Amino acid sequence: MWLDFRAMRTLILGGDGYLGWPTAMRFSSRGHDVTVLDDFSRRRWHHERSTGSLTPIRSLFERVDAWRELTGHEIQTMVGSVQDGEFLDQVIAEIRPDVVIHYAEQPSAPFSMGSRRQAVETQQNNVIGTLNLLFALRDHVPACHLIKLGTMGEYGTPNIDIEEGYIEIEHKGRRDTLPYPKVPGSIYHLSKVHDSHNIHFACRVWGLRATDLNQGVVYGIETEETAIDERLVTRFDYDELFGTALNRFCVQAVIGHPLTVYGEGGQTRGFLNIRDTLQCIELAANNPAPLGEFRVFNQFTEQFSVGELAALVQEASAELGYEATIENVPNPRVEAEQHYYNAVNTKLLDLGLQPHYLGPELVRSTLKTIARYQQHVITRAIAPKTVWRPAELSGEAMSG
Amino acid sequence: MWLDFRAMRTLILGGDGYLGWPTAMRFSSRGHDVTVLDDFSRRRWHHERSTGSLTPIRSLFERVDAWRELTGHEIQTMVGSVQDGEFLDQVIAEIRPDVVIHYAEQPSAPFSMGSRRQAVETQQNNVIGTLNLLFALRDHVPACHLIKLGTMGEYGTPNIDIEEGYIEIEHKGRRDTLPYPKVPGSIYHLSKVHDSHNIHFACRVWGLRATDLNQGVVYGIETEETAIDERLVTRFDYDELFGTALNRFCVQAVIGHPLTVYGEGGQTRGFLNIRDTLQCIELAANNPAPLGEFRVFNQFTEQFSVGELAALVQEASAELGYEATIENVPNPRVEAEQHYYNAVNTKLLDLGLQPHYLGPELVRSTLKTIARYQQHVITRAIAPKTVWRPAELSGEAMSG
Repeated sequence: MWLDFRAMRTLILGGDGYLGWPTAMRFSSRGHDVTVLDDFSRRRWHHERSTGSLTPIRSLFERVDAWRELTGHEIQTMVGSVQDGEFLDQVIAEIRPDVVIHYAEQPSAPFSMGSRRQAVETQQNNVIGTLNLLFALRDHVPACHLIKLGTMGEYGTPNIDIEEGYIEIEHKGRRDTLPYPKVPGSIYHLSKVHDSHNIHFACRVWGLRATDLNQGVVYGIETEETAIDERLVTRFDYDELFGTALNRFCVQAVIGHPLTVYGEGGQTRGFLNIRDTLQCIELAANNPAPLGEFRVFNQFTEQFSVGELAALVQEASAELGYEATIENVPNPRVEAEQHYYNAVNTKLLDLGLQPHYLGPELVRSTLKTIARYQQHVITRAIAPKTVWRPAELSGEAMSG
Repeated sequence: MWLDFRAMRTLILGGDGYLGWPTAMRFSSRGHDVTVLDDFSRRRWHHERSTGSLTPIRSLFERVDAWRELTGHEIQTMVGSVQDGEFLDQVIAEIRPDVVIHYAEQPSAPFSMGSRRQAVETQQNNVIGTLNLLFALRDHVPACHLIKLGTMGEYGTPNIDIEEGYIEIEHKGRRDTLPYPKVPGSIYHLSKVHDSHNIHFACRVWGLRATDLNQGVVYGIETEETAIDERLVTRFDYDELFGTALNRFCVQAVIGHPLTVYGEGGQTRGFLNIRDTLQCIELAANNPAPLGEFRVFNQFTEQFSVGELAALVQEASAELGYEATIENVPNPRVEAEQHYYNAVNTKLLDLGLQPHYLGPELVRSTLKTIARYQQHVITRAIAPKTVWRPAELSGEAMSG
């Protein structure tokens, strides 16, 4: 296997984040030449709200120093924004990456729905940032493999099976394979749809190659590398903006708050363990898309409804002595609460993905980690304040 | 009929443009209360290139003064950019329009492909501008009818019939009606796809109402109102960035240059007369989409290939004594030059659209207008300088 090894110049955009930092360590541990780029937007958005990661994450430089000290591997850092086209162009020209792993996007649906300003910030950062990247790749390293984090939320909840990026349509006696239609559920999810269209174009017209990973909801705190030392821990968000349902439920169970299920809880989505995210990224990088291809993988291992997740957390926490109750609260989002959902996810399995499935054991391990930092939980940050449809709207819009 | 008449507070974004200005006069002549908003981007982009309209367009204030003098109707003006969210919010709050007709977008595919800067300017102006508008409508006039100019180019050239916005898909024994898949051919066309997704979301989630007019290529200079007085004339672009094939062919015929067909000339598109654009806009405004609906009309009256257009211009110009030759030049774009194309366009016909079909008479009339301003033709501006795929790319990308 090592006979085949070739170190990849790997550029990780958003390399200070929840997935970016563990990805950087994973690729570095494999002997790749890793650079992380970040502008610390996520830390800033937390500062602005006096919220933060439950785990005590270190600054990027401290992380990189600890990683060097512990493993002897050097991770390069670049500080700046993908929105700055000149800067990004220079970075790409200098590093000439073999692979770019692009996490540098505003990742929160509620954040994007909070105000016009936040909506614009989301689409501007995500869409313009990715557009800047596509031009830089075209102009300096057109054979570079772009691995882009998309989301399963691009598809919405159609009444037919969700395929991986494309669908063959027979219509009035003719056939074509076309991009799978998208009905995303927030301004954030829309930004990912826009990215997908822009990247597809760059592959078709400029011959770039890209893998769009339409990722489900990620859970879990620990990877092989974060477990080495507390200085290498990755962030854990549980607030209304950046936390996800499973994280929220786990924190609520530990602090003795009812698990708050939005609406009926029949909302079904794809999920995966953070360890599997890293596997998927490695599989994509080691098996690059052919030149000119916009390849789409649905990156999740299991489907759950929100209600099922709450029940799982309730069960697992009971074994640790937490008595969690489940409370159905008004849904701040506009979404179907009971719907058909069946998404294909075979392409990454075909490449060799070995899933870590979600069970009581993982939940208990997460609960224990949370318990360790319990005194730092910022309770006021958990309840949803951002609503998809402002209250005053329903009345006025209905009156026509 | 006048018993039913109700003056609409009409806001026209991009009201200084090729279609915006004639639309303003049409709605004003009908007795509606019209405000035009523009930031003169199109005039600026021409200034930057020392190009301009062949017709001697007046400044916005001169136009509005002439319109008042000739008809007694007052058109209000607002100067500013849709990219300025605060400004647009204040405009919507103040005017409280019944209908917004949104033309305020960068409309050129070659412009959007010229450089990273131009690509970013295009998507930023178009996508963020429309996003700002959606928030302003949501917050101040959620029952307002948004009429948005899209483009047939959003669809690309699929191998199945193009439907009007949505397609019913049967897949693995289940059915759903979903947005028609989009394969747009430039950064500009992509921006319109992004807009469509954003507006669809605003209708679904906020209950707004919108009509997306996926317009074909517009030709023609004259409308009922522009013909009243030369001061009311609308712009006529023929340069490589803002001119379209038919305009370019007509100018080339008059100045004795071969008609330059890009590539094989089998590229087929939908076309319509500017008079029919105005009809369509009026039909949409008089028959608003229901609250909560994102309605899509394919707005064109005929399909032609580029080669057919050139042949038509050659024929019509011969009758006026111009000897036009046809020259197939290397295609600066990346597009299929022979392909299936069949697009549905029945919804506007069902509302009462009476098409003005393209024939030698219209071409002759256009040729005569061009001849009148012939001495102002800027010849250097006609040949395509912007290419979709930079020359150096093919080699490097192929070598892997």
